[in-house]
Amino acid sequence: MKVGILGGGQLGRMLLQAAANYTVETFVMENDDNCPAAHLCHHFIKGDINNFDAVYQFGKNLDALTIEIEAVNIAALEKLEQEGVKIYPKPSAIKIIKNKISQKKFYQQHQIPTAEFVITQQQHDLQNYINFFPAAHKLAEGGYDGKGVQIIQAETDINKGFDTPAVLEKIVSIKKEIALIVAVNDKKEMAIYPAAEMVFDPILNLLDYQLSPARLEEKELWKAESIALSVVKNLNSAGLFAVELFVDENKEVLVNETAPRVHNSGHHTIEANYCSQYDMLWRIMLNYPLGNTKAIIPSAIVNIVGAENYQGNAQYEGLENVLQMENVFVHLYGKQTTKAGRKMGHVTIISNDYNDLTYKANKIKHILKVMA
Amino acid sequence: MKVGILGGGQLGRMLLQAAANYTVETFVMENDDNCPAAHLCHHFIKGDINNFDAVYQFGKNLDALTIEIEAVNIAALEKLEQEGVKIYPKPSAIKIIKNKISQKKFYQQHQIPTAEFVITQQQHDLQNYINFFPAAHKLAEGGYDGKGVQIIQAETDINKGFDTPAVLEKIVSIKKEIALIVAVNDKKEMAIYPAAEMVFDPILNLLDYQLSPARLEEKELWKAESIALSVVKNLNSAGLFAVELFVDENKEVLVNETAPRVHNSGHHTIEANYCSQYDMLWRIMLNYPLGNTKAIIPSAIVNIVGAENYQGNAQYEGLENVLQMENVFVHLYGKQTTKAGRKMGHVTIISNDYNDLTYKANKIKHILKVMA
Repeated sequence: MKVGILGGGQLGRMLLQAAANYTVETFVMENDDNCPAAHLCHHFIKGDINNFDAVYQFGKNLDALTIEIEAVNIAALEKLEQEGVKIYPKPSAIKIIKNKISQKKFYQQHQIPTAEFVITQQQHDLQNYINFFPAAHKLAEGGYDGKGVQIIQAETDINKGFDTPAVLEKIVSIKKEIALIVAVNDKKEMAIYPAAEMVFDPILNLLDYQLSPARLEEKELWKAESIALSVVKNLNSAGLFAVELFVDENKEVLVNETAPRVHNSGHHTIEANYCSQYDMLWRIMLNYPLGNTKAIIPSAIVNIVGAENYQGNAQYEGLENVLQMENVFVHLYGKQTTKAGRKMGHVTIISNDYNDLTYKANKIKHILKVMA
Repeated sequence: MKVGILGGGQLGRMLLQAAANYTVETFVMENDDNCPAAHLCHHFIKGDINNFDAVYQFGKNLDALTIEIEAVNIAALEKLEQEGVKIYPKPSAIKIIKNKISQKKFYQQHQIPTAEFVITQQQHDLQNYINFFPAAHKLAEGGYDGKGVQIIQAETDINKGFDTPAVLEKIVSIKKEIALIVAVNDKKEMAIYPAAEMVFDPILNLLDYQLSPARLEEKELWKAESIALSVVKNLNSAGLFAVELFVDENKEVLVNETAPRVHNSGHHTIEANYCSQYDMLWRIMLNYPLGNTKAIIPSAIVNIVGAENYQGNAQYEGLENVLQMENVFVHLYGKQTTKAGRKMGHVTIISNDYNDLTYKANKIKHILKVMA
């Protein structure tokens, strides 16, 4: 079977590590032939995944195709789908998710709880929603890794708002941010992973690390699972989806956003779950049975990101110390150059003791730095 | 760092899956450009790993080099070593092990317990050792995967013996066959994995499956560990080594043979140990700290080999059923064609319950078949 991946970043890299457990001929398209996934596939094609012709030519002789980023040419995927190429997830699902306005409307249409919102076309529209503040202004398309979001606390922040179509979302009083990964195969069978919880630094407001399974009250988990399943059912497509949710102070659960692909919040499943998210997507595409989503052992993820004020050839300070920790797994994405905030790798910690997970996660955050 | 692997089979494939957790530029040389590892490296070079020029040209611009099979050109490795390329393991260690006669002499010289043996140059030499039978006649060089061994029960079997240099080894009354993997880094620090035990089918005399950690009496384990460490210390080389041992009816432990590389008996370490044997070899070559060899959870390995009487395009019967088992990990090596006995993949089972491991291993042996 010939399977292609649009995008050659770290998600593609980890997908290809998992692909080597099966017999499948792999294809990757990405603009950069030094990208993290380029050397791990049978066929690397340098090309623009946003270009209709490039995507169509790449896909037309494949049996199946997946994405590792939403910013792809959907028209080409639609044509390929019509011609019989299996697309995971369907272009119709990517289309809904890719644009934050259609994504929010989709939740609304299916009575899926999500933060209250309005749509703005240009910056001065924000003037009409002064009573709606504090709110998050989110670019409809093109936001990525924290870019494309502005917090509008009050009228004086309006000049930070976007002048192109965007969603203005009421700030929710968040108790916890969680993520749930859901897998769906062509027979519409579903499997759901244990929830993961994001632990934020209260001062810097940065994602510090992630714990899984999340520490949630039973009712919160039930709500979260039911909402995640409802999101994915209504997207009406096979594939793998990561649903990010908020649990608020009243124990209500709201969808934040959905990614129609393998996701940063699922890295720990490589070591900590019977079937990793990467393995799961191959099972779906190769028409194998869904895998077991259960955790073998609790885990934490620490993201390794480029340190502020460093740009150039990546140097990993503290790596030796981290590699010496006995229950820790290091994943570097093989990116030559670092810059502030760039995702350079991650570390997974496994332990039955949440205190150990938290202790090690904090320690790793402090000692491991990507400089240049 | 530029690191090369001589050989592109399944061991190379799994090494490269592990390499993608680090930033390393990988090179593979093998005669077959459809071999299991060919598409998972940065640079694949088609060439004969037994040819001096091919190996020398391949290695001369690399920082380090390893092997996934002993049948390589050692003279080229010696020249590369003199020129400053780091070879894991050292050519001197490969040389000792590659030839069964020098390997047995090495054990003898270092007072390492091993089955009694004599050396034969041609078949009719066996006539001199009639009182030594029953014995195993083992080809000095070129034996692989059970080939190159003949059991000489009595004088009437002498015509099965080899007519080239070979070792004639007294048959030991084996209670258990075990394997221990030992890692050594450039600082001569060592790490030893928990023992694995081979479980044989008493009727077919085939390796049925492997369990780890092995069920051994404490004293047997102590002896085995001390012998394995002694073997590796005396080989006087950094690298990863698999030491196969017999435990006899008198609880004595004898070395059977040593492999100077990642090994079939260590496949389970991918899922069942903190640091896999593949990860460990990268840590050694990249000059990182040794990893934690401890088992996270007990495990079994079932080898998937080509069924008798089938040759051609591989078809996996029963794969769906195995993929449905909840604590089971499938690894297919991506070989297009099968033949009787060819190693096509393996399955790892993890469980805290040895009965579950045994039950599932037997089940998998019965339902999973590689046909053509």
